[in-house]
Amino acid sequence: MGNRGSKQQVDGRRQSVRGRATATAVPKDTKKAYEMLCERLKELSALGGISGLLGWDEMVMMPAGAANSRGAQKSALAGVMYDKKTDPTLGALLETLRAAPAGALDPVAAAVVRDASKDYVKATALPKELAQRIARLETDAYPAWVKAKQASDFSIFAPFLKEWVEVNKEKARLIDPSAPAYDVLLDDFEKGLTSARLDAVFAQAREGLVPLIAAIKSRGAKLDDSWTHGEFDVEAQAALCKKIALDLGFDTEHGRLDVSVHPFTGGAHPTDVRMTTRFKKEDVMEGITGAIHETGHALYEQGRNLEYDGLPVNSALSMGVHESQSLLWERMVGLSKPFAAYLLPLLKERFPATFGSATPQQLYEAENTIREPSLIRVESDEVTYPLHIILRYELERGLMDGSVQVDDIPRLWNEKMQSYLGATPPSDAKGCLQDVHWSAGLFGYFPTYTLGAMYATQIYAAAAKDIPGLEDKIKAGDFAPLKSWLNVKIHKLGSLHASGDELMTAVTGGPLDPSVFLTYLKNKYTELYKL
Amino acid sequence: MGNRGSKQQVDGRRQSVRGRATATAVPKDTKKAYEMLCERLKELSALGGISGLLGWDEMVMMPAGAANSRGAQKSALAGVMYDKKTDPTLGALLETLRAAPAGALDPVAAAVVRDASKDYVKATALPKELAQRIARLETDAYPAWVKAKQASDFSIFAPFLKEWVEVNKEKARLIDPSAPAYDVLLDDFEKGLTSARLDAVFAQAREGLVPLIAAIKSRGAKLDDSWTHGEFDVEAQAALCKKIALDLGFDTEHGRLDVSVHPFTGGAHPTDVRMTTRFKKEDVMEGITGAIHETGHALYEQGRNLEYDGLPVNSALSMGVHESQSLLWERMVGLSKPFAAYLLPLLKERFPATFGSATPQQLYEAENTIREPSLIRVESDEVTYPLHIILRYELERGLMDGSVQVDDIPRLWNEKMQSYLGATPPSDAKGCLQDVHWSAGLFGYFPTYTLGAMYATQIYAAAAKDIPGLEDKIKAGDFAPLKSWLNVKIHKLGSLHASGDELMTAVTGGPLDPSVFLTYLKNKYTELYKL
Repeated sequence: MGNRGSKQQVDGRRQSVRGRATATAVPKDTKKAYEMLCERLKELSALGGISGLLGWDEMVMMPAGAANSRGAQKSALAGVMYDKKTDPTLGALLETLRAAPAGALDPVAAAVVRDASKDYVKATALPKELAQRIARLETDAYPAWVKAKQASDFSIFAPFLKEWVEVNKEKARLIDPSAPAYDVLLDDFEKGLTSARLDAVFAQAREGLVPLIAAIKSRGAKLDDSWTHGEFDVEAQAALCKKIALDLGFDTEHGRLDVSVHPFTGGAHPTDVRMTTRFKKEDVMEGITGAIHETGHALYEQGRNLEYDGLPVNSALSMGVHESQSLLWERMVGLSKPFAAYLLPLLKERFPATFGSATPQQLYEAENTIREPSLIRVESDEVTYPLHIILRYELERGLMDGSVQVDDIPRLWNEKMQSYLGATPPSDAKGCLQDVHWSAGLFGYFPTYTLGAMYATQIYAAAAKDIPGLEDKIKAGDFAPLKSWLNVKIHKLGSLHASGDELMTAVTGGPLDPSVFLTYLKNKYTELYKL
Repeated sequence: MGNRGSKQQVDGRRQSVRGRATATAVPKDTKKAYEMLCERLKELSALGGISGLLGWDEMVMMPAGAANSRGAQKSALAGVMYDKKTDPTLGALLETLRAAPAGALDPVAAAVVRDASKDYVKATALPKELAQRIARLETDAYPAWVKAKQASDFSIFAPFLKEWVEVNKEKARLIDPSAPAYDVLLDDFEKGLTSARLDAVFAQAREGLVPLIAAIKSRGAKLDDSWTHGEFDVEAQAALCKKIALDLGFDTEHGRLDVSVHPFTGGAHPTDVRMTTRFKKEDVMEGITGAIHETGHALYEQGRNLEYDGLPVNSALSMGVHESQSLLWERMVGLSKPFAAYLLPLLKERFPATFGSATPQQLYEAENTIREPSLIRVESDEVTYPLHIILRYELERGLMDGSVQVDDIPRLWNEKMQSYLGATPPSDAKGCLQDVHWSAGLFGYFPTYTLGAMYATQIYAAAAKDIPGLEDKIKAGDFAPLKSWLNVKIHKLGSLHASGDELMTAVTGGPLDPSVFLTYLKNKYTELYKL
């Protein structure tokens, strides 16, 4: 309202005074060059925080009629950030720093230069024509996918998927012609991972899971969770989930908890983390599980190291590691026996009609009920979920190296579903058209879900060794020791390490090991299903 | 969480493709130059919208511990906007367009060039040293004012006020050495107004108000509003105020209504207007009045002309005109007899204990009770408020032209209070230290409050002539005709006109005329107080 002017104007000018200084030649002195780099990266981080806030607001607060103006705002901000990310002075600074003598940069600075260099290459790699082609595809492919899914007709979506494959190959080639295209794309989501390594990891997982699932299936559905359904006041659910989030360690001085259609964790900064949940009247357990999952993400964000505020080294290492934090809390803690002992009294107090006479063991069994393998990834349990991911990985990897053709996707999808999960989708809508990811051109995203689940078991096993009496503490609702351990071992390290394997080695003594995940599942479900 | 990358990256690239084009030489062709100008102004408008959202979020949503990171985000965005506001290409475009032959620009384009040129001059006028001095003062003067007010000791604040006077004079001289310093500052808040004109307007107001206030005072406090106080459920108040805001025409498809410590109206765009209210348990009328006031601001914002979206011509003409919209709804409508007839049934329904047996006339009288003239501006009624403003105007104008010295402020303040309102503050805290404005270096801001009140009466008088049976419609809760009239006559015009006087002439047939305001007050209070 009106022009209050001066305050903002001057903030701007101060900024510009600084900006002008950095526009001079890049200093040869390593320390000075590093300082200049950090200044630029912090500015980008602050603008990225604004972008995060816009995203949160759009999902949680924005009035429906503001979509167009919000689009213009996001585009303007993205334009500003693009200009800064591709500024040649930034490139020159990074070049100077990469040429610094060994040992001139401490490990943190070296990690900053490593990750910022990669970002710079990615930001500057694409020529205008390709960028425009991608932009057009982003606009056109989503509605085509929606239409294809509604009609359950893959052929409507196929031409768009073909073009996505083509432009993604071209993009990968421009970023790094020496690496397989899939590896270049994967790096956006899971830093430092290769498809060769992922092949081995997923093959081992698949070989362990397929017989386990068959064994559970042949036992028949012994467990039952139908008694946990009922009618649960949504306000009471929200209050309970808030209590749980606070008990786990979510800090409302540096975050918010709201409700949104799709639960997510976002925000503007480690001191401003915004998680959302969602509640269904008939299913209190789903709301709780979702809240614990998002709390895991939020604790990672709130735990980022403020000593390196605004530098890439303090952000999450990868999407897989982020997911490891949500899944560690959701599955290793939230679906465990000791947690059932903590949770049940809270449920009894609020919802006595349903939970009044239950035992912790009954709650634990209900939470871990495995139904018929679902055809739908997002409805799957922790045993079958990885096979949904492995199937997608095998297909998208094949699309990138040419061993899979787009037109063969429906057939291959159904064959793999039958082979891995013993069920064939009745339609493309419930098969290869179920996920939005490929319509947005996201290849290399899917694996992070299952990598996260594997990291989580391995990290939790290390925590259980380090923290005496961890299960008793969880039973007593004392989550602080585990949270503090994760703060130190995972959160504060940010993306200091070059890959998930490196991080696992630092935290657990060895790289990612799928056998830990498999052993966890086998032990748990052998007991539950008396296999 | 992780790097989803591509979407934002490409938005950025599209932007940059555009950015690169505009970096070329400025075209001589008027139409092309104007298009380029609009593109840049729209980008700045979008970034300004983001800034508006950050401000709203900070007041309404942000967790307390995020203050530092939000500061960094605001500073980064202000830096970006400063660079764009002072971009020499923008200056060259404006120069080209100002040199265009008469008639080459339509009235809207001419207004865009006029206002954008002024903004460019203001943005580029200050040298680095002065900007840094202002920035320091902004940081230092506020805490000094807080301390001075707490100690009720003006001498603690005096050195900072002296420096503000100095830097504001210097700033004004750099922007326009040919105009009086105060006029240059005033233009930031009330476009096109001069102190010479304001002297005449305020002198006329003062001469009419002083005897009116004395007459009311000598009648003694006949009216009574104490019966309207009680205990009112805050949720019920909020629901009532939402109903009233919706009845007045607030559009929740393009806005939000929340609660904040200080009610305000902000947001990111005319399609995303965010108003806030506040409720006190013991005083339902204050909450209602505040909600109506903010709705007036919000209707102006929502009524901005989307045909000129993102251009200066679609924004509010001035702070005074903005205030005219809030005060028109608050006072001319909300404190009127017909509105009391609309409001009373709503109050009876929700708060029967207090309002069950009241008549509309009793409610009207309670709403318009004038107590002892308050020493405090923000607690004053519509009759005494203008004198608080005129006093401040006379002092700040004197500071700027050298006829008033900072050290004389406490004495002059108290003398004027005695002369205008018949009361002398017992302390500086309740006198010249009561307002925050001068500590932020804001000179020229105060007059807009009373200009708004005057515009409001004049605009309402014109509306009452144009809209048949306006009072009956208000009585019936049918506010749409008035809102539509304001949409067309005021909101959609934005800042097309060069001054409030020009707008008043277009809407009411003549420039601002304080006698309309004085006649309104005299008639109203002569009847109420049987003077």
